[in-house]
Amino acid sequence: MGIRVGVAGASGYAGGELLRLLAGHPEFDLVTATAHSQAGSPVGAVHPHLTGLGLTLGSTTADAFEDVDLVFLALPHGQSAALATQLPETVKIVDIGADFRLADGDAWQRYYGGEHAGTWTYGLPELPGQRERIAASTRVANTGCYAVTTILALAPLIAAGVADPEDVVVVASSGTSGAGRAAKTHLLASEVMGSLSTYKTGRHQHVPEIKQATGAKSLSFTPVLAPMPRGILATVTAKALTGDDPRETLAEAYANDPFVHVLETGRWPQTASVSGSNSVHLQATVDVDSGRIIAVSASDNLGKGAAGQAVQNANLMFGLPETTGLQIYGVAP
Amino acid sequence: MGIRVGVAGASGYAGGELLRLLAGHPEFDLVTATAHSQAGSPVGAVHPHLTGLGLTLGSTTADAFEDVDLVFLALPHGQSAALATQLPETVKIVDIGADFRLADGDAWQRYYGGEHAGTWTYGLPELPGQRERIAASTRVANTGCYAVTTILALAPLIAAGVADPEDVVVVASSGTSGAGRAAKTHLLASEVMGSLSTYKTGRHQHVPEIKQATGAKSLSFTPVLAPMPRGILATVTAKALTGDDPRETLAEAYANDPFVHVLETGRWPQTASVSGSNSVHLQATVDVDSGRIIAVSASDNLGKGAAGQAVQNANLMFGLPETTGLQIYGVAP
Amino acid sequence: MGIRVGVAGASGYAGGELLRLLAGHPEFDLVTATAHSQAGSPVGAVHPHLTGLGLTLGSTTADAFEDVDLVFLALPHGQSAALATQLPETVKIVDIGADFRLADGDAWQRYYGGEHAGTWTYGLPELPGQRERIAASTRVANTGCYAVTTILALAPLIAAGVADPEDVVVVASSGTSGAGRAAKTHLLASEVMGSLSTYKTGRHQHVPEIKQATGAKSLSFTPVLAPMPRGILATVTAKALTGDDPRETLAEAYANDPFVHVLETGRWPQTASVSGSNSVHLQATVDVDSGRIIAVSASDNLGKGAAGQAVQNANLMFGLPETTGLQIYGVAP
Amino acid sequence: MGIRVGVAGASGYAGGELLRLLAGHPEFDLVTATAHSQAGSPVGAVHPHLTGLGLTLGSTTADAFEDVDLVFLALPHGQSAALATQLPETVKIVDIGADFRLADGDAWQRYYGGEHAGTWTYGLPELPGQRERIAASTRVANTGCYAVTTILALAPLIAAGVADPEDVVVVASSGTSGAGRAAKTHLLASEVMGSLSTYKTGRHQHVPEIKQATGAKSLSFTPVLAPMPRGILATVTAKALTGDDPRETLAEAYANDPFVHVLETGRWPQTASVSGSNSVHLQATVDVDSGRIIAVSASDNLGKGAAGQAVQNANLMFGLPETTGLQIYGVAP
Repeated sequence: MGIRVGVAGASGYAGGELLRLLAGHPEFDLVTATAHSQAGSPVGAVHPHLTGLGLTLGSTTADAFEDVDLVFLALPHGQSAALATQLPETVKIVDIGADFRLADGDAWQRYYGGEHAGTWTYGLPELPGQRERIAASTRVANTGCYAVTTILALAPLIAAGVADPEDVVVVASSGTSGAGRAAKTHLLASEVMGSLSTYKTGRHQHVPEIKQATGAKSLSFTPVLAPMPRGILATVTAKALTGDDPRETLAEAYANDPFVHVLETGRWPQTASVSGSNSVHLQATVDVDSGRIIAVSASDNLGKGAAGQAVQNANLMFGLPETTGLQIYGVAP
Repeated sequence: MGIRVGVAGASGYAGGELLRLLAGHPEFDLVTATAHSQAGSPVGAVHPHLTGLGLTLGSTTADAFEDVDLVFLALPHGQSAALATQLPETVKIVDIGADFRLADGDAWQRYYGGEHAGTWTYGLPELPGQRERIAASTRVANTGCYAVTTILALAPLIAAGVADPEDVVVVASSGTSGAGRAAKTHLLASEVMGSLSTYKTGRHQHVPEIKQATGAKSLSFTPVLAPMPRGILATVTAKALTGDDPRETLAEAYANDPFVHVLETGRWPQTASVSGSNSVHLQATVDVDSGRIIAVSASDNLGKGAAGQAVQNANLMFGLPETTGLQIYGVAP
Repeated sequence: MGIRVGVAGASGYAGGELLRLLAGHPEFDLVTATAHSQAGSPVGAVHPHLTGLGLTLGSTTADAFEDVDLVFLALPHGQSAALATQLPETVKIVDIGADFRLADGDAWQRYYGGEHAGTWTYGLPELPGQRERIAASTRVANTGCYAVTTILALAPLIAAGVADPEDVVVVASSGTSGAGRAAKTHLLASEVMGSLSTYKTGRHQHVPEIKQATGAKSLSFTPVLAPMPRGILATVTAKALTGDDPRETLAEAYANDPFVHVLETGRWPQTASVSGSNSVHLQATVDVDSGRIIAVSASDNLGKGAAGQAVQNANLMFGLPETTGLQIYGVAP
Repeated sequence: MGIRVGVAGASGYAGGELLRLLAGHPEFDLVTATAHSQAGSPVGAVHPHLTGLGLTLGSTTADAFEDVDLVFLALPHGQSAALATQLPETVKIVDIGADFRLADGDAWQRYYGGEHAGTWTYGLPELPGQRERIAASTRVANTGCYAVTTILALAPLIAAGVADPEDVVVVASSGTSGAGRAAKTHLLASEVMGSLSTYKTGRHQHVPEIKQATGAKSLSFTPVLAPMPRGILATVTAKALTGDDPRETLAEAYANDPFVHVLETGRWPQTASVSGSNSVHLQATVDVDSGRIIAVSASDNLGKGAAGQAVQNANLMFGLPETTGLQIYGVAP
């Protein structure tokens, strides 16, 4: 008898990816999945790639999760608390939304608006000591997609005193699934294919999350919408404080992490390499002109950036091997 | 102790997909992979998405496969026989190339040129009786990517007397990985993105293979190169011989096949839905103007069209459950 | 003093392309452009590529076109008649919508529904004698995008007795701009990129238009949505009635047409080659297996398929050289 | 009788774009175009979108340009000088290559290697006073594609004392045509579509060119290869030295430039908006967290980044209106 699992908010892209991963997970039994306007639809009608899954979406109410051991919340920002407070303490929860990520209520207000719901264990196992904290938690706040991609490249460099936390500049490009599944004109294929554009320029909500997890003091973060369905490529630059090779710092930091791969010198991350997987590829060098460190990070925004990370956290929360049901290798080309 | 497996021709796209599938297969142990000009390179340098696999490509010689139970051949057309004849009869072989697919040596000559190497068991388990023949074989010729996508839509319609084999017209579009990994100008991203074009118009080499497997007597087949990395969408039309609903004919034919999904009425196949999986999605209707049957089929050219199919065949050859190590659900969006 | 021109329905993709072409037209002065929900917006806010045009969208009412010599209607199907009947007879009109294309009111009812508005001169100058009829008209119904792409490949073959009108099979793939600019989930970039799918399978509304213009008696037409913003590639097959080379038939038919290019033998059309232009590229051969004629046609659905064609028609209606303000050469890569 | 023009190196993407622009230019008569391995081919066989142009590529020798008034060089880096020195002084030359862009021979050696050919007038008319210098020159070195996109966003901010030249960080993404037309595996459609990756990370050759034209003292520049055929999006960040609105600084600087558009506040550049045109779209703001200026710039790498810019320069050199034969509006969607 496996661990009984439910997904709240299963009609979006992160929810769909969760269903896909759970369908192949050997220990988690997907028993219920819910949605809002799509309640009542077979999963295959909402997510054609899950044709054959044989599950119908229910309504997102606490009742739907009465009989489960684990709930993944993939709800719009601001809606997690209302459901979470109705679930018994014995049910473990991973929230893919942003509601419980920030320790600083003021930062929440400034970037998200609305009331701050609270702070849960931050679900990034590769941070020092965090794997253990997650394993001991019943409530975990999953990382933001841009945040995790940036943090993995930056955190060890600041922690090791190699990169200056006072002047970090990040430009990160994301595939369109990161913008969600709501039908909006600027996300139409006709508008996006063949085009690149920045958005939320100079005021993205992942800034406080990145600062909290890395110790960066000043962060210029620019997100770019890229013509591809999945993937994030983050270019993270910071002043070098030492003469150390930043690649070595990263390689040491992640020597024992199954999902973080620091590439051989000379090879640089490509998002296609991690597509469909839970892996992150990293590389770093020092700019010959400015002397700044340039660290580059590639992730799948629906994998390590959302659903894969959530399953990794849940594995830890249930004492399972961290890689259970997750892919190391991306689907390419 | 698992079944020891080797891959000959592991540097191309089909070879890379084989490595990816084998890395996650619970019964097959990937012990050797070979290449031609890339021999000596770590797998991750050739296939960045397989970073971490910890295998170095050897040279494609018979010696490299001395100690294995199963060999997948992913060599250029015309090169399989030279290696296959050097391998002992006890080693099971699945050839992803075209060399052993056709029973008709003249058709081989006409479409491929060169000497006809022979005929092996045709590796399409969903054809009637074929699953058993494959299970009893030590040599299996995998299907062509366009061929399998077309055959699965067409064969049951002709077999049931629903579609006229005398006038079949197929237009099938493929992602670029179907054209291989050799550096050619017309396959550059700049040339392909934002563009569609036909090629080998009126003379594609999968025609005799489709006719052999379906009983079609006359086949007009036009392949189209599409701006996406993976996937085939085949539109198969034929005169209706009866008033039967072609969807029902397909649904009955594949009621027990785990990888072939006849969609609910009103839903039509999309290639993204099967990307990275071994599944094929099918739908069919009757054209209101011409009365022709239109059957549409979507596959992943590297999955059911190549490496996935090969693993499915190998599973059968070793008495394993057909779905072992394969995905039912595609990676989408 | 130039010819004063207005565009009704300027916020969609066809409307935007009209504005772009008119901005560069040496004889037509764009003086008014209207929209529905976007009325009041500067053109550059609605069509960012037209930043600098210095025009604000008005409301689509007859008053807006009081003072113009020429009106292009780019309205949703069924809305052209209401505006057209309010405009004086002296104002020349090209309707990009479908309302006035069909001579057969029953066919209109069957494929479009609603009342048939009437029949205007069919705006395809390359049809025999049609250039003169357009020049003599004050009301012209522009062609459908799939229709013109198919008709140009098929009409001369049927007219010359080379292709059998009784069994025509067409599969045509279009970029997403052909599906319009309304925000719909299935047109999101995340859903379309990396994917191909058929739609309106077996019942597309351009069927009667193609039959009317070509004399085809039976037509199986399947449209495919392709992951690119612009372009249509049509594969048109029909039984050969003679031993003639179909390429020659096409080359003779279009020897004097500036926008229709029959490619050299061995070269096949690519949609990128005509992107942004008013040109159509054609090629044809005979299938070696079935003996069917395969004619392939590439157009820009917003160019020759909509706005470019409309300008070409208007040029003729005003006695201007047909190519005025239009591009022969596409923007590639 | 127009101005007689030749293009050396017409088989690549920049060369093809030059031919396309010249075919529509009212004053320049394209009389000769040359290539290396493609010499002898009709233009339409090399550039299918130029089918109908009726020109055959000659060999790239000085003889080919004997009788022309203006030559565009679109040769590989390092090959311009050999041809240029053989052409009479009376022939005006615009070099699209990098050979004559840098004043600093050491910087040339460091980034390009080989002997420094010399320094020509820098062909960026929007720099203060540069329009006049170009008009007075017979030899002009066209800008690099990344360089012009970055310089237009950065130069006025440094010149006005608004941005700190000591700590400039640029991340710029380019479509694949910027990488040229040579057949290389990493530029295959299969490798690029659905993927983003950095390259030449920390050591791109446009760094000295950007510094020379803007006065930047320290420049971290990271180029990204994006899955689209054309377009560059540059994100340029620098410390703010004043409280000025950087958008205003840009708007003032380009108030009279026909091709540079500073967008309305709230709108951000998209590459599709300038595709096929000679325009650049700009916007700027101040990051709320770091206080850094973020300026974003979009260009067409083959337009303002190469061929369009070259024609603009040539227009000036011949006393023509700067916009002759060039497009203000991009082809979108």
